Amino acid sequence: MAESMQGLKRSHRCTEVSSANIGEKVTVMGWVQKSRNKGGIIFVDLRDRSGILQVIFEESQCGAECFEKAGKLRSEFVAAIEGTVCKRAGAVNENLATGDIEVVASSLRILSEAETPPFPIEENSKTKEEIRLKYRYLDLRRPDLQRNLIMKSKVATIARQFMADEGFLEIETPMLTKSTPEGARDYLVPSRVHPGTFYALPQSPQLFKQLLMCSGYDRYFQIARCFRDEDLRADRQPEFTQMDMELSFVDVDDVIDVNERLLAKLFKEILDLDIQLPIQRMTWQEAMDRFGSDKPDLRFGLELKDVSDVVKDCEFGVFTGALANGGTVRGINAEGQGSMPRKKIDALIEYAKTYGAKGLAYIVINEDGSYKSSFAKFMTEEQMNALVAAMDGKPGDLLLFAADKTKIVWTVLGALRCHLAELMGLVDKNVYRFVWITEFPLLEWSDEENRFTAMHHPFTMPMEEDLQYIDSDPGRVRAKAYDIVLNGNEIGGGSVRIHQDDIQEKMFECLGFTKAEAHERFGFLLDAFKYGVPPHAGLAYGLDRLVMLMAKQDSIRDVIAFPKVKDASCLMTNAPDYVDDKQLAELGIEVTPEAEAEIEAEKSAPADAE
Amino acid sequence: MAESMQGLKRSHRCTEVSSANIGEKVTVMGWVQKSRNKGGIIFVDLRDRSGILQVIFEESQCGAECFEKAGKLRSEFVAAIEGTVCKRAGAVNENLATGDIEVVASSLRILSEAETPPFPIEENSKTKEEIRLKYRYLDLRRPDLQRNLIMKSKVATIARQFMADEGFLEIETPMLTKSTPEGARDYLVPSRVHPGTFYALPQSPQLFKQLLMCSGYDRYFQIARCFRDEDLRADRQPEFTQMDMELSFVDVDDVIDVNERLLAKLFKEILDLDIQLPIQRMTWQEAMDRFGSDKPDLRFGLELKDVSDVVKDCEFGVFTGALANGGTVRGINAEGQGSMPRKKIDALIEYAKTYGAKGLAYIVINEDGSYKSSFAKFMTEEQMNALVAAMDGKPGDLLLFAADKTKIVWTVLGALRCHLAELMGLVDKNVYRFVWITEFPLLEWSDEENRFTAMHHPFTMPMEEDLQYIDSDPGRVRAKAYDIVLNGNEIGGGSVRIHQDDIQEKMFECLGFTKAEAHERFGFLLDAFKYGVPPHAGLAYGLDRLVMLMAKQDSIRDVIAFPKVKDASCLMTNAPDYVDDKQLAELGIEVTPEAEAEIEAEKSAPADAE
Repeated sequence: MAESMQGLKRSHRCTEVSSANIGEKVTVMGWVQKSRNKGGIIFVDLRDRSGILQVIFEESQCGAECFEKAGKLRSEFVAAIEGTVCKRAGAVNENLATGDIEVVASSLRILSEAETPPFPIEENSKTKEEIRLKYRYLDLRRPDLQRNLIMKSKVATIARQFMADEGFLEIETPMLTKSTPEGARDYLVPSRVHPGTFYALPQSPQLFKQLLMCSGYDRYFQIARCFRDEDLRADRQPEFTQMDMELSFVDVDDVIDVNERLLAKLFKEILDLDIQLPIQRMTWQEAMDRFGSDKPDLRFGLELKDVSDVVKDCEFGVFTGALANGGTVRGINAEGQGSMPRKKIDALIEYAKTYGAKGLAYIVINEDGSYKSSFAKFMTEEQMNALVAAMDGKPGDLLLFAADKTKIVWTVLGALRCHLAELMGLVDKNVYRFVWITEFPLLEWSDEENRFTAMHHPFTMPMEEDLQYIDSDPGRVRAKAYDIVLNGNEIGGGSVRIHQDDIQEKMFECLGFTKAEAHERFGFLLDAFKYGVPPHAGLAYGLDRLVMLMAKQDSIRDVIAFPKVKDASCLMTNAPDYVDDKQLAELGIEVTPEAEAEIEAEKSAPADAE
Repeated sequence: MAESMQGLKRSHRCTEVSSANIGEKVTVMGWVQKSRNKGGIIFVDLRDRSGILQVIFEESQCGAECFEKAGKLRSEFVAAIEGTVCKRAGAVNENLATGDIEVVASSLRILSEAETPPFPIEENSKTKEEIRLKYRYLDLRRPDLQRNLIMKSKVATIARQFMADEGFLEIETPMLTKSTPEGARDYLVPSRVHPGTFYALPQSPQLFKQLLMCSGYDRYFQIARCFRDEDLRADRQPEFTQMDMELSFVDVDDVIDVNERLLAKLFKEILDLDIQLPIQRMTWQEAMDRFGSDKPDLRFGLELKDVSDVVKDCEFGVFTGALANGGTVRGINAEGQGSMPRKKIDALIEYAKTYGAKGLAYIVINEDGSYKSSFAKFMTEEQMNALVAAMDGKPGDLLLFAADKTKIVWTVLGALRCHLAELMGLVDKNVYRFVWITEFPLLEWSDEENRFTAMHHPFTMPMEEDLQYIDSDPGRVRAKAYDIVLNGNEIGGGSVRIHQDDIQEKMFECLGFTKAEAHERFGFLLDAFKYGVPPHAGLAYGLDRLVMLMAKQDSIRDVIAFPKVKDASCLMTNAPDYVDDKQLAELGIEVTPEAEAEIEAEKSAPADAE
């Protein structure tokens, strides 16, 4: 039997009560964290969003009826308690903000009883994530998840106010719209009014924000839900949130400037961390050469070195073969790892293979300066010495090499570098290292499509000084594109857009689109561009990922209130679900016989099957 | 040929330049509003989001090449201009913020040329809305639309900051989810991973915000996109934006208090209007009795009067028949409208019929005190006098009566009242009259479903003092529900929710749901309620409608950047559209043969057919 709160008014949240209130009457409401009767006194830890407050019931203070009721309190019951704030009679609890006081109850209402939850409501839960997601409404009571969501709310509030102060307008763009050229798979929404046609949910507000610049809104900002129907990874969700902006009459430096100040404000206000401005910038070329990645983690070294020149005349076919093939040989010096057991080195090689390496060559520099190497027999002593010198090898170091097409070498060593850093304990979770990656290639060659594709998107502006190569050597043209990278994660990215029709045409040519094809794909944007378009540029953050990093979480599911799991389903609501045939008929669609057969097979499968 | 802005930096927006800058060098960028050569000087009105600035080109100042280029400027070209701020040489333009100055140009870059737009970019456009929506990116350049969207952005910013200051957390709820019990038609999203199943787009975050209260978030706020697949009216869109909140440990007064302060802040900061607090409250019963509407427009009188008692013994069958049928007879005094021509009175009757009236009875009180009436012959002189007296009739007044079931009488006279106010010029667009409507009936009888349905939703809390009637006379039970009404528009509404399981069970009983049915519909919320639920209450605003009223617009399309039209399509993007069969096959769905046939018929129809 639940009681009403009619006539009562909460005076404080739990941790808003402090020693400053001693002697005052308060009314607090919340969940029972725990309750125990110790020596005829009932101790109740009352919990709300703010934290925990100790309440005590003594029969002499609250009367027999109230005391008896207090005896019924169990974990997760919701209670409203009136009482007087007192200095804590027992030992002060240093772990609680309210550890030096307690409320001596004078009355109690049980607003809601509770069954025993299927798992304990506690920090750093050991309960399997599937169970927690099924009962997400209970999981969300855990203090760590509450801190994450409170942080996310703060990030949004601070960002919005900052952007408003900088003259950005928050403008909503449609959710029921047409495919955008992001290239991922769209979620579709069947139309009832026009059966056989479909809306697409937006992969990003890209085209709309560019249109808003054409319309003269000058500075646009939106925290926008975006959708991609892709297979999920740990840090992907079918719906995710983008902190999205676009600016008119600007160039790269303007976008970087406003975003550096935004990030500095967020990190200062949320984490009390000072980001040194300006944030370091690095060209894409340098990032790839030094770190094998366009999102380098700068918290540790382990830089890549190109040793192609050093090994070009050796007899080791793996090296020379890669070079003859137009590839490179690059290495990493895992300093001090020379004593790594052979088994662990083999594990590194297996790890490298998952990133496309055929293998890894290595040199162990023994403490006495001698080498143990997988390929020493193909090298002269001078060649070995030169190679070790090129890698700054010292006694006790382990040198690892990959030889292949440069793209593969980068991928392999870029991943290996991060893996080694983890193994070597070089990753400091308390350090935030930002870097802007700039001057991305405009185009990248797709073997699959046998044409160039846009590295960012087809509206990305080439660097003016590289326009001269756009016909002769399109792969050499760099773009006015930039990513902001934090601790090895791309947290945002953007570009200056093309606003000149001749350059846009050239770009479509490079991508192999005819005018008609370009128009079919991007029609209304190209139409808009006919009527006077300002130079403009923008950037978008993955808000979930940014908050995940700020909150030091490993999964974006821990910063989203109601996330989906890997198969894009919600374990709590059971969405997606079957619907009435009548509903589908109204939309002019039906489930295909193939899908029906699959459903039947699934339904008739034994319930305990995996 | 478009030029680059590389190397240039905008120093001011157009109207940020003022007489304080006279003598300074400035760099301005924007669209050419108009351009003319007058006596060898080229005058250019440059426009951006902020407004218009006059720039002049004189060959002696800017050189021949620049002057020639300036001669090519046409409307909607985008230009970057460097120049010096001077006191305006010609007459001061009082209509412009920058009317006392001009910029004497020293250099010009044409950043983008423009074709002649299909309609003029001007305030209060006379262009047909369909044309404007097709070229929405041009329509959005018009200053009135820009003002609306800027206002909307401000409303969101102020509301969010206010809510954050009040301790509300902004928490995102899912877009890809399950049906909510709002009762309107859902938009569905087919799942690719689980073919044959569907997500629903949310009609509101109702269930999720209640779950967040169960999870202890205490105060939730979100500006949330919502979706309803209903046939559209002027103030409805398939996707719309709700300003949504929920609070724990509160009762009606707490919700009303925070919302009154929110509204007062918005109207003060946006319109510089002081809303008198507290806002008037009126029970649903009073609103219906006096205004025939649960969203009464209080800017004018024309109140309804119940004259059932006065006419109960007359011989006029329309009146007595309605009364015998359990109905009522009610009237409106259209003061001073006694001279309305018969034709116009007939038009009023036709108008009333569209709201379900069988007709309207009327009395004209002539200036000499005599009556002209459609039903005088059925009345004694005393009865006529009593009726006129009951209506406060004076010479020159027109009294209009409806007799029917009370619900119909209310609907008819409620609509007639607003219609008369328009005709009589009683509606002052500059006045904002708020009123809270409270104590709604908990249930309303549905003849169609032959059962009670929830007037708000099944989680709405009954008033404690009416719980005694819930078995004997459920229709008499009032709810802790409230709407906030502005000038005859419901701009928001909400309720205290049920948090006691016994009351919730009783509610489902009233609605005719078995336990199993209730669980099927609202399962995960009811599950959540088992584990300790706080008393909670909430409210949601239709943000588009609120901004529409603040901006004095007649259509919510004028406060939405990219709206849909009546058939839920977007004239600019052409969404919804056909998609590849391959895409559908991946989702396990296909277009039905019936829909295919319809599509074929449509495609083969002559292009010029209506």
